[in-house]
Amino acid sequence: MKGDDTIRILITGGTIDKEYDPLTGELTFPKSHLSNMLNQVRCKVRFVLEEMMLKDSLEMKDGDREEILKKCAHCSENRIVITHGTDTMVETARLLGDKVKGKTVVLVGAMIPYAFGASDALFNLGCAFSAVQALQPGVYITMNGKIFLWNNVRKNRESGEFEELT
Amino acid sequence: MKGDDTIRILITGGTIDKEYDPLTGELTFPKSHLSNMLNQVRCKVRFVLEEMMLKDSLEMKDGDREEILKKCAHCSENRIVITHGTDTMVETARLLGDKVKGKTVVLVGAMIPYAFGASDALFNLGCAFSAVQALQPGVYITMNGKIFLWNNVRKNRESGEFEELT
Amino acid sequence: MKGDDTIRILITGGTIDKEYDPLTGELTFPKSHLSNMLNQVRCKVRFVLEEMMLKDSLEMKDGDREEILKKCAHCSENRIVITHGTDTMVETARLLGDKVKGKTVVLVGAMIPYAFGASDALFNLGCAFSAVQALQPGVYITMNGKIFLWNNVRKNRESGEFEELT
Amino acid sequence: MKGDDTIRILITGGTIDKEYDPLTGELTFPKSHLSNMLNQVRCKVRFVLEEMMLKDSLEMKDGDREEILKKCAHCSENRIVITHGTDTMVETARLLGDKVKGKTVVLVGAMIPYAFGASDALFNLGCAFSAVQALQPGVYITMNGKIFLWNNVRKNRESGEFEELT
Repeated sequence: MKGDDTIRILITGGTIDKEYDPLTGELTFPKSHLSNMLNQVRCKVRFVLEEMMLKDSLEMKDGDREEILKKCAHCSENRIVITHGTDTMVETARLLGDKVKGKTVVLVGAMIPYAFGASDALFNLGCAFSAVQALQPGVYITMNGKIFLWNNVRKNRESGEFEELT
Repeated sequence: MKGDDTIRILITGGTIDKEYDPLTGELTFPKSHLSNMLNQVRCKVRFVLEEMMLKDSLEMKDGDREEILKKCAHCSENRIVITHGTDTMVETARLLGDKVKGKTVVLVGAMIPYAFGASDALFNLGCAFSAVQALQPGVYITMNGKIFLWNNVRKNRESGEFEELT
Repeated sequence: MKGDDTIRILITGGTIDKEYDPLTGELTFPKSHLSNMLNQVRCKVRFVLEEMMLKDSLEMKDGDREEILKKCAHCSENRIVITHGTDTMVETARLLGDKVKGKTVVLVGAMIPYAFGASDALFNLGCAFSAVQALQPGVYITMNGKIFLWNNVRKNRESGEFEELT
Repeated sequence: MKGDDTIRILITGGTIDKEYDPLTGELTFPKSHLSNMLNQVRCKVRFVLEEMMLKDSLEMKDGDREEILKKCAHCSENRIVITHGTDTMVETARLLGDKVKGKTVVLVGAMIPYAFGASDALFNLGCAFSAVQALQPGVYITMNGKIFLWNNVRKNRESGEFEELT
């Protein structure tokens, strides 16, 4: 039985899950690392992992965002963490913020892949896990150690950091 | 000017900050890694770092805990993260929970040092950062992806995991 | 005084020294990691480090190879390690093999950057260090744990591995 | 068919293979990492891996060394790499140097476990791989980027580095 406090983790891709392909020199998505990450950090919260897609968020279409919205609205859990590319994370957060009611949803990603050295992935994921458990229903982004409301956040492309609008 | 939302990070030692000394084969504390950790993860929350001590928590005395209590009570910040060894983290949390009022205090540590491979340190630190920002005043522990109230937590020494009392 | 056994390390770039730039998502060369690598591995052989260039070897010109050849011919050391991109490593080795006499020269690189997880960089560098000390004058490549003579090696682009011609 | 150039790798333990046990805070040997290491570095030399024991070399007995000697003498390969703790590596090298004839044997270890950050393990292993292929029959130690003859090496316990006797 999944209780109220189970966290659903929706995997959509993004830098957090990218790997270096030595044959092509490109960053690719051979598989998600989320299961390994949660195992490494000894996470004992109940969660279900669902890999919806593995995409660079610049290549997400409206249809992809609609799928994420549907999943958030219809899944049985009230606490949802979404791993997502940083480039259009704010756009997805806005769609969800406008439409998802009565659930706590936290979007999170990374600037450096988990698979590389000196990554921010595990810290960011930790931020998302506490936020999704501690916060009232609503849609949030956790990046750079901060918690942002979906309608008061942007990615500063020059610094690569997330910041409040006001 | 330090605003209300600055986080004070009190460093007390614990496994999170241990290193392997190749000459003796022992785990030691040559220095704290917190500054490097927060730099690596691109943390943009305002914080002040204070190294109070670097101790294995089994070697903490009552006097050490009193110092931590005084610091929490008298510092100007209302949001405090304490890095701490896991073995007596619950004991320190109880002293603080009983005495610190009107502030949000989160104790956190790691089972594997940050400096080793496959550590839980960055994830746990992320959990602490979100918790200290999102939670109401009170004293908490974040370990294993969970948030515990100071008076409802124990370390299970057989599994090495933190769990609720009830 | 530099004795006969000092190793000159010529840095030319290649994947071994690449880093991930989180702002652009590209692999770049902000600086060489060779000094950090040799420090990490506690190398006590006498060496001099010289950063000639930091290039993807696909972008090396004939002029770059001529510079490397001149440096090998004219430096005072008889043992030379060259860090180099893998894509045209064989081409540079052939130029050197044809022209450098009386010195032991070993070219080496990596398929995964040192700065990423699970890299082959340190192992390959170790192979180069032993090879340059143990081998007779000549020009060699060390990759995949093997030692190749300059005129009997190719990079198999499908497998990403170096192999003998015959 | 194993040809002349197959390398036999004898695993005996030592720091290179140690892991941190989060429950006890001790360094232990749950398993050898050699297979993972050789996979990570894309080693394409033919080799056979044999785990003889997993011991801190301070706990090796004369009988253990006799077993290693027998294995070196009787195995079909002429090129042998032995992973070994650094504290008594010189002692084992002396026994082998005195008795093993017609084979190239290289002992190697690490000051920092492979499983920890900033380890010298992969570099040292690379040194051993080139040395065992390039050197004439004899017994050697590769540590700190250097190649030592079995009868001209000691571990300096103050610096943790290997050095020539003369």
